[in-house]
Amino acid sequence: MKISVVKNILEANDRIAQENRAIFDENGLMVFNLMSSPGAGKTSLLEKTIDALKNEVRISVIEGDIQSSQDAERIAQKDVPVVQINTGGACHLDANMIRDTFDKFNFQDLDLMVVENVGNLVCPAEFKVGEDFKVMILSLPEGEDKPSKYPLMFHESSVLLINKIDLLPYLGCDIELMKSRALKINPDLNVFEISCKTGEGLEEWYAWLKKQLKAKR
Amino acid sequence: MKISVVKNILEANDRIAQENRAIFDENGLMVFNLMSSPGAGKTSLLEKTIDALKNEVRISVIEGDIQSSQDAERIAQKDVPVVQINTGGACHLDANMIRDTFDKFNFQDLDLMVVENVGNLVCPAEFKVGEDFKVMILSLPEGEDKPSKYPLMFHESSVLLINKIDLLPYLGCDIELMKSRALKINPDLNVFEISCKTGEGLEEWYAWLKKQLKAKR
Repeated sequence: MKISVVKNILEANDRIAQENRAIFDENGLMVFNLMSSPGAGKTSLLEKTIDALKNEVRISVIEGDIQSSQDAERIAQKDVPVVQINTGGACHLDANMIRDTFDKFNFQDLDLMVVENVGNLVCPAEFKVGEDFKVMILSLPEGEDKPSKYPLMFHESSVLLINKIDLLPYLGCDIELMKSRALKINPDLNVFEISCKTGEGLEEWYAWLKKQLKAKR
Repeated sequence: MKISVVKNILEANDRIAQENRAIFDENGLMVFNLMSSPGAGKTSLLEKTIDALKNEVRISVIEGDIQSSQDAERIAQKDVPVVQINTGGACHLDANMIRDTFDKFNFQDLDLMVVENVGNLVCPAEFKVGEDFKVMILSLPEGEDKPSKYPLMFHESSVLLINKIDLLPYLGCDIELMKSRALKINPDLNVFEISCKTGEGLEEWYAWLKKQLKAKR
């Protein structure tokens, strides 16, 4: 009984996500869903990515947080369209919340929309929002045991960004083990080792993202 | 409608949590619920705490993970009773899951039970399990903006352990701001700055914990 209720919620969500996706596709808009634990570096990645690409790519952002608008304020400083969703307690974004933002954007003037999910390595992976693909960040201080403990997000994502690699000398973390465990769960993951602080590794991520945008157009 | 369903689930959980708590109290067993983001250091804190206290305190552990038994295996090496709960997808432990472990323990031979929750800064704070109090860890790399973005866990916890302070020289993190933001949400928080890696600050945490155990007996 409990399981069937959950299944109905997920099915209803998937249906709305498909409708969102159809609208994004009609407008030639590429969307990715950005997920991670709290503090892994989602907003920092967005700031860097906007700085690097905004002369060639028209970017917009949806910020998901339980409460506060700190992340939207950070993104607004980059002078790109941004909408803050406050979930009021919910630990993930769903397709309906995304649809409720549509009147705030002019899709035809955009190439890329990033949905920054609530910081949570569990539930966001279960709820599609209409995205083309999912991108997850795992930061080095979280440890190399995370792929086997939180497998769904690794399974569902197309990209794994391993962030904060500048901290490697100060951590007892085995980055190769982290990568091999993630790839064991999802061999199709595109893995990039990055530092949003130093900029290391970000060029490869930008190049990959631009390639996807070109393929979508 | 949706809200009333959630309320019923929480009420049913609270009732079972009260029953659990009554059983713990009858047996003079102190229980705390340990919560944090993934990778903030819950299991490392437990390893250190067991090493420091196990000659004077009879400790047991319930490990909560979506899947895998890596944490229980780490704790089992410390030669204390440990039970692993696999939630199979659920992002938090609830009171019923805890009750299902009772036949695995002999409560009269124990002074302290620690329930290590699923790594998640959101949902675990909503579900009581029968604990005397909640302890949360926030690790320095997660950043000083977390209290205002994930307020419920700070509000519900009695103790905030700020972990990984050995990384302070390498992070652009303001630990005083982190503390003041947490205390603004919950002025009663007992805050300890610790490093499970270097051992810094842990003596104060052990002393506090022993004081609570003495008061409970």
